[in-house]
Amino acid sequence: MSPTVGLEILCNEDADELMQYSQMYGFSFMVPQILKFGSIALDDASYPPASLVYDKLVLNGPEHASFSIGSIAPWMDVESSDLMAVSHCQTIIRQQVQWASHIGLSGVIFYCPTTGPMINFSRCLNEAIGMLNYSQVFIRIPIFISGDDNEGWTRWNTARILGRHNVKLVVALEIGHELPSPEVLEKWLAEPIRLAILPTNAFITNKGGFPVLSKRHQSFIQKLMETDCKFVISSPSNDSLHKAGTLSLYREYIEFLNRNLPAGDVINQFSAGYHDYLQAPLQPLMENLESATYEVFEKDPIKYQQYEMAVYRALIDRVPENSDIISTIMVVGAGRGPLVDRSLKAAADAGRKVKLYAVEKNANAVVGLRARKAAVWGDAVTVVHIDMRYWNPEDKADILVSELLGSFGDNELSPECLDGAQRLIKDGGISIPSQYVSYIAPLSSSKLFTEAASFNDEEHMETPYVVKFRSVYEIAESVPLWKFDHPTPCNMRPIGHPQFNLHNSRYGSASFDISQDTMMHGIAGYFESTLYKDVMISIRPKTHSDGMFSWFPLFFPIKIPIFLPKGSSVELHFWRLSNTHKVWYEWCVIPCINGTPVMGEASMIHNVGGKSFWIGL
Amino acid sequence: MSPTVGLEILCNEDADELMQYSQMYGFSFMVPQILKFGSIALDDASYPPASLVYDKLVLNGPEHASFSIGSIAPWMDVESSDLMAVSHCQTIIRQQVQWASHIGLSGVIFYCPTTGPMINFSRCLNEAIGMLNYSQVFIRIPIFISGDDNEGWTRWNTARILGRHNVKLVVALEIGHELPSPEVLEKWLAEPIRLAILPTNAFITNKGGFPVLSKRHQSFIQKLMETDCKFVISSPSNDSLHKAGTLSLYREYIEFLNRNLPAGDVINQFSAGYHDYLQAPLQPLMENLESATYEVFEKDPIKYQQYEMAVYRALIDRVPENSDIISTIMVVGAGRGPLVDRSLKAAADAGRKVKLYAVEKNANAVVGLRARKAAVWGDAVTVVHIDMRYWNPEDKADILVSELLGSFGDNELSPECLDGAQRLIKDGGISIPSQYVSYIAPLSSSKLFTEAASFNDEEHMETPYVVKFRSVYEIAESVPLWKFDHPTPCNMRPIGHPQFNLHNSRYGSASFDISQDTMMHGIAGYFESTLYKDVMISIRPKTHSDGMFSWFPLFFPIKIPIFLPKGSSVELHFWRLSNTHKVWYEWCVIPCINGTPVMGEASMIHNVGGKSFWIGL
Repeated sequence: MSPTVGLEILCNEDADELMQYSQMYGFSFMVPQILKFGSIALDDASYPPASLVYDKLVLNGPEHASFSIGSIAPWMDVESSDLMAVSHCQTIIRQQVQWASHIGLSGVIFYCPTTGPMINFSRCLNEAIGMLNYSQVFIRIPIFISGDDNEGWTRWNTARILGRHNVKLVVALEIGHELPSPEVLEKWLAEPIRLAILPTNAFITNKGGFPVLSKRHQSFIQKLMETDCKFVISSPSNDSLHKAGTLSLYREYIEFLNRNLPAGDVINQFSAGYHDYLQAPLQPLMENLESATYEVFEKDPIKYQQYEMAVYRALIDRVPENSDIISTIMVVGAGRGPLVDRSLKAAADAGRKVKLYAVEKNANAVVGLRARKAAVWGDAVTVVHIDMRYWNPEDKADILVSELLGSFGDNELSPECLDGAQRLIKDGGISIPSQYVSYIAPLSSSKLFTEAASFNDEEHMETPYVVKFRSVYEIAESVPLWKFDHPTPCNMRPIGHPQFNLHNSRYGSASFDISQDTMMHGIAGYFESTLYKDVMISIRPKTHSDGMFSWFPLFFPIKIPIFLPKGSSVELHFWRLSNTHKVWYEWCVIPCINGTPVMGEASMIHNVGGKSFWIGL
Repeated sequence: MSPTVGLEILCNEDADELMQYSQMYGFSFMVPQILKFGSIALDDASYPPASLVYDKLVLNGPEHASFSIGSIAPWMDVESSDLMAVSHCQTIIRQQVQWASHIGLSGVIFYCPTTGPMINFSRCLNEAIGMLNYSQVFIRIPIFISGDDNEGWTRWNTARILGRHNVKLVVALEIGHELPSPEVLEKWLAEPIRLAILPTNAFITNKGGFPVLSKRHQSFIQKLMETDCKFVISSPSNDSLHKAGTLSLYREYIEFLNRNLPAGDVINQFSAGYHDYLQAPLQPLMENLESATYEVFEKDPIKYQQYEMAVYRALIDRVPENSDIISTIMVVGAGRGPLVDRSLKAAADAGRKVKLYAVEKNANAVVGLRARKAAVWGDAVTVVHIDMRYWNPEDKADILVSELLGSFGDNELSPECLDGAQRLIKDGGISIPSQYVSYIAPLSSSKLFTEAASFNDEEHMETPYVVKFRSVYEIAESVPLWKFDHPTPCNMRPIGHPQFNLHNSRYGSASFDISQDTMMHGIAGYFESTLYKDVMISIRPKTHSDGMFSWFPLFFPIKIPIFLPKGSSVELHFWRLSNTHKVWYEWCVIPCINGTPVMGEASMIHNVGGKSFWIGL
């Protein structure tokens, strides 16, 4: 797909002429000023300010609207200490915004001041957002403001905080010659950058004399191409309309970068369309999976290979070579049978004799299992239609195989289910998986926060979501939160009944150092699981099983974003709790200065008593 | 009205016996433990924990519920690092809470831990609040925890933040022998203290051998008596049931303090019932006042006396003694005529000749004015039924008298109305009032915040309210924000029309130093007005016109409470804005460290575009 590239020429030509040039040289849109430069002199302030007149306008009618994103005159200073001048500016800004709304522009750009407190400027942005029902408001910010490579982000952060995180306020990032540090760039990728404005002087000339970008620029631009960002070539010259022919070279270079995007890996191909989309986690105990869901997950090339390896190793360890011992393998939650297939294959490869039970509670899935048995498995496999928690066979298992893990490990109630099935395992028998560990990391993501906040209720801010992350910044690396072992080492009886589930309660906390100023919007949840000995699967970024796509991470939102300054730290506290009919998580966030909690800035404890989100037992 | 005094005896007697003693000695309620001391030994943890049994209960049935507030066993440690022990404690706490709910207790008390992080304890409080539909949850906190006299408040603050400012979570303040600093006490008075627990050792013995409290204790207790706080005498002795007779002396002392409350001044008498009650400000331009509203305000003993003085002084200054000059006085917005009366009286006292116009837009009020003219005023007064903004008399005024001020000075649109009436004043003529200044101060008040938040929408968090303050703590003294002068010095024409109202726009900001850790919940708004020269009226606490009750302050809420640590500062920013049909305020709060704004912790800008609150033109 070709990227959308627009043209900005800072001049006083009429919109008609600008549009002709832009179209002639292949640009998809243009970014004109709304007012002509110098059309209103502020020292000549009349009262009330003069009305807009046709010949002061660049964008002088609705016929250019669909091809344009208009800029508010950048010489408007609403942060002056001269209050009458400020009033005057505000009136002229209001006139431009009303005009933009009148002619139907889809977006209006405000130049962010690069000095001063931004307070009245932010108020003007808010006012514009309120006046523009159908348009986005772009705040145009240089990615590098001299002196402090974080200053641009700080200014954006100020505007969005004073503007109550309004989803209509987005960033037009001006990407000049100089870039900030890689860390700051990474943080920017978690922000809603909808325009990337490239002045021609951000380009360098290659041997052939053509405009190109530095490697670092290329890499950042290509990351933006994976989001819904448009690009703008900006020519600062006032007399450069005749150069529009040359300007098309810049456009072509952007298109070239897009054609040469790094090939997406298998996970990215699988997850196209899922990026930053909030899904409710599965409730497999309460609801039966659909066949299509099984089918998607069965295609994972890595997960079942690891399960096969785990069963193979376990059989090798458990039974001597050439023995006649028949090992009993129970696949609990067999679904459509992939683990049955893999277990049979592992046994064959290992040269060990096995007897298999395929246990499944979903009646629809059992239909398929029985068909497989008839057609393929034969006597080697017994299909049992029952909830594993209530099955009482005469046989016991040498190896109990299950695939009940959720994105957070235990969040689809694997612990409770396997407790209920533990009776099925012989003393000294094996559970695959044998352990899983939940991991957490603090997360910055305007996108995920505003998505959850758009529901406008507390419930959606207290619900964890399954999300394929894209526009997120992991503020610090994930760390382990808690773990579950199977068979459970809990020596209290009875286990496996909701009334006696205390041993599956968890409390964990972790502290994270903050390496740069950032806004925290929520918490990322991952898992790592030991299937058997060193056979692992993981969805932690650092140890992610290469090519495995069965799980996206969890996103736990927080109701109010928290500012974390560089050099501070943040504590996350999590609980896993249950009663007789449900399991849920609660969480809170506590910022710390010099290692000391600043309780006054703590979040509330989210999802108290599982009021907004729970998983049914 | 007698204060409600209860009795706590820390012992293992049955509730029946405790109730008999409490009633015999005149107490209105009792504060027993729910469980007997030592009835559950934690080192003997069975799994699952044993159920509650009758003989382990002090509060063993519903027959004591209406007479009791029950305490959760204080030996439950939910902050231990032994997670199984914590689970066990939580289960036993849950049993007690469920029992409390079952027997119908109106309140349950949790002892706040005096060390440790409070995080899991707060989670337990949240859980209890969720389980108790009809009961308050009291957190019992010593007012003085050794080492830091702010520690008790800090612990309360932690619990309420982690508990999302739930209105059902209130304070049971244990007031022992030692008190914290006056500043901390003042801060406590802005918190929801619903029980004040006085251990007998907080008392000293007077010459007669009777238990009394220190002066500082007396003063604090008497302030609590003005709120809906109940009192508890607590006897620490385990064998003191027989001392209940003696304990009644303590109760009598509390009742004595109540009988000897400092007499309320006239304002307090007038405002009984209005304390901390949120009222929408008047909209006098859009809506006509009712006769009862006029009647209430006309009773103010100070306001009209000051107006009379102002008119008197202005006449003396303007007209030489024994002159035949007839001064024209126009009372605009004359209502039922009190300023007409006062102006006539001032003229008579000054010995100056006057001609009066009583201008009023409210047709119903005009009926009364005409009756007064017929009965009392005669030819001295001309009644004119018109909106002052549209009146075009031949005469012009030497003195224009109006009473259009709101709690914030300009918030009932006095500036716009007087602009519209300015044509009526002769060159060099006088407006009474001649100036008014709006004042602001940062405010802490759980009560006002939870009241506004209880509407559960953004609109109510962006609306200023007229409130008679009681449970509030003014974090720093109020300072001037902006002012209006009349006749307006604005030299731009035309004035007095909504389209040309820019000169009545205002922006102001102020910075406040923070002397102790505090939560900010909103902003107090006041005014001071110069009627004429040094004749003033004021509702600022520091300069409040003694005995004047016509105005209560304004409370501007903020959507999210902000923690302000000792030694920091806070900036408040305010705008007064208008369009063709309305006037509104916007405001935001910016915490600062070392004088530098921490924009990441700023509030949003409230009431953008007047979306939640405005005053109609």
